[in-house]
Amino acid sequence: MKYIDGGICAAKGFKASGTYCGIKKPAVENPNTTHKNDICLYVSDVLCNAAAVYTQNKVKGAPILVTKANLEKSGNKAIAVIANSKNANTCNADGVEKADKMCELVANELGIPKEQVIVASTGVIGQVLPIEPIVEAVPVLAKGLDYDKNLEAATAIMTTDTVKKEYAVEFEINGVTCKLGGMAKGSGMIHPNMATTLNFITSDCAVSGELLQKALSEIVKVTYNCLSIDGDTSTNDMVCLMANGLAGNDEIACEGEEYDIFKTALYEVMANLTRMLAKDGEGATKLLECICEGAATKDTAITVAKSVVCSSLFKAAMFGEDANWGRVLCAIGYADAEFDINKVSVDLKSDKGIISVCSNGAGIDFSEEEASVVLSADEIYILINLNDGDESATAWGCDLTYDYVKINGDYRT
Amino acid sequence: MKYIDGGICAAKGFKASGTYCGIKKPAVENPNTTHKNDICLYVSDVLCNAAAVYTQNKVKGAPILVTKANLEKSGNKAIAVIANSKNANTCNADGVEKADKMCELVANELGIPKEQVIVASTGVIGQVLPIEPIVEAVPVLAKGLDYDKNLEAATAIMTTDTVKKEYAVEFEINGVTCKLGGMAKGSGMIHPNMATTLNFITSDCAVSGELLQKALSEIVKVTYNCLSIDGDTSTNDMVCLMANGLAGNDEIACEGEEYDIFKTALYEVMANLTRMLAKDGEGATKLLECICEGAATKDTAITVAKSVVCSSLFKAAMFGEDANWGRVLCAIGYADAEFDINKVSVDLKSDKGIISVCSNGAGIDFSEEEASVVLSADEIYILINLNDGDESATAWGCDLTYDYVKINGDYRT
Repeated sequence: MKYIDGGICAAKGFKASGTYCGIKKPAVENPNTTHKNDICLYVSDVLCNAAAVYTQNKVKGAPILVTKANLEKSGNKAIAVIANSKNANTCNADGVEKADKMCELVANELGIPKEQVIVASTGVIGQVLPIEPIVEAVPVLAKGLDYDKNLEAATAIMTTDTVKKEYAVEFEINGVTCKLGGMAKGSGMIHPNMATTLNFITSDCAVSGELLQKALSEIVKVTYNCLSIDGDTSTNDMVCLMANGLAGNDEIACEGEEYDIFKTALYEVMANLTRMLAKDGEGATKLLECICEGAATKDTAITVAKSVVCSSLFKAAMFGEDANWGRVLCAIGYADAEFDINKVSVDLKSDKGIISVCSNGAGIDFSEEEASVVLSADEIYILINLNDGDESATAWGCDLTYDYVKINGDYRT
Repeated sequence: MKYIDGGICAAKGFKASGTYCGIKKPAVENPNTTHKNDICLYVSDVLCNAAAVYTQNKVKGAPILVTKANLEKSGNKAIAVIANSKNANTCNADGVEKADKMCELVANELGIPKEQVIVASTGVIGQVLPIEPIVEAVPVLAKGLDYDKNLEAATAIMTTDTVKKEYAVEFEINGVTCKLGGMAKGSGMIHPNMATTLNFITSDCAVSGELLQKALSEIVKVTYNCLSIDGDTSTNDMVCLMANGLAGNDEIACEGEEYDIFKTALYEVMANLTRMLAKDGEGATKLLECICEGAATKDTAITVAKSVVCSSLFKAAMFGEDANWGRVLCAIGYADAEFDINKVSVDLKSDKGIISVCSNGAGIDFSEEEASVVLSADEIYILINLNDGDESATAWGCDLTYDYVKINGDYRT
């Protein structure tokens, strides 16, 4: 499994493009953005098997409803994806009509059926989406499509993100080199439930539609769904995975060694994108990675690890570089899972060292000076052992800072 | 139901006292506190029926364990309560021993059985509780006990609280005047689950032990359990209610009109203390009160209202006085309850006016200027109608501010 450049264009036969159409304020007027694009398109040279997972929020963005309907109609096949930022097209009376129009514009431009187009939007909820700029942008996007324009697309989906998020890997299936890459956006309103903020993944590996969905659903559970920036599950969360088979491997149609390799590649890309999302959480200065080991079940490990990265108090303590481990124990304690709190141990670790703060559910004497050094790093690992089994899980989050409050006290204006 | 002064000393036969023993840094050294006491005692002239609810966190403070054991041993009778702030006596190897010692000191001083003493602690988790200052404080506390020293006690339980919280009411049971009052502490780590931060309630009404517990459990569900400051369920949450019967009414021993009056009094006191806790949430500048009406069930109304006051994004928007109602819809949407999102309406209200922002699940045009005026108040009401039934509930919270981050980035030092 080797890291490669190229994001969504790493896999064979995927072209992308991005442009600025005017939904988002230009970068010069908006000090929060260093990137200019606000709409992107990406297209496979051939029809793909497609899989998707969506937000479980009852309020669903119109693009979610339209994408779901399209994939049902097309039998989970897709060829193109259009996505815009700065406007979520959610809670709008004409939302579905506009999202459908976006697919239609792409379909007409590319000469493909409308139901083979996936649409996604992210941004403010409840503001009417202006369609005119998109009508003008689609031909520009289509003209700009190229095999190396992944960055144009990755920057177009950014909202309060401060960095673009891309990751891709190369792997072998029966001697055939395959690629899988993705891009993601998101910085706030991140507490995915069965899906997450916008994530787009492409592969040239040949995989059956059924296994594609199965792999995505499994991996999303241990990657995006283990991420929380602020406990708010977005209305527009979506992960969409397209595989066009252009690598030339025999289609993976049943579980086994090849499927496991594909799943590992998918995990590698999704876990790394998840990590990037956590690290670029709104206002964040530190990545928090909580690894829960020694759990009786996988679900217990996930629940405990997530509970810790979701704790506002612990997140604020990490911002203050304060080894307030009682808040870790508190968050473990209210996690909705079964284990014996008196067996729990906790270590805090970074590239600057490691300190043990709790053993058998009670505090251990430690040097506050050493703790300060460990916590001065910008990536902090919270290592929990429940000493109750062999399962483990990782959850990702970030610290809670003044800037989170600042960004969200004044997001719309 | 009439408001009266006196807090825990409002009811007949309850004496209180408070002092500074040195667990907490003196006020002069600690700019976060304007109050000096760190330990208090209150005592009833006669034995009381007692009821309590405790945190559901698996990590339970030692005082919780000892109080629970005492009430079991005494058959839910109690006469005295000792409580300290600044140290939670939680996750300490010698915690139970020390909490038990606190009860023993009070019992010896007052000449009562140890199991009739309730003990509570609040403050930092995982720091060894120094017992020597408490040994010296108990005789001082006993000597200072008086029928008008409720304020000495109410300030002794404060941690990051900026104001003391007391409330009491007067009511009639069959022509007999009864009183019920309480005090509470808490400002952070507040997201009660079946109980909450420390809350002490006293009454001179005669009520059977069974009905006392029933009333407490019912009312806690719609008051403290509908409160969230930061989503963190504390390890030391406890509400304890004592009734000594000195008002002289015939004991309320079965459900009916008298029981309902008592419950209303209990609701009045607990709801007002809850409101005070929310308003004094760590770093808060605004009280948020979310009223969900038109729900098919009470639980749905509670779940929806709580989801909104728990949303970090909405809380930050309120700090910024930004009518970002999409975040209200988003939080309603991820509430774990059954209703039709397309029927939901939302108004934002304060003493400066009211604006409708959402109807039938979609946005309504409103004046941003008017919205700014409404949201400039320091008590904001979020009115939700699910248009799906007749049940309603209220949840309380506060805005998310720079100061919350500041306080919690540097709490231990």
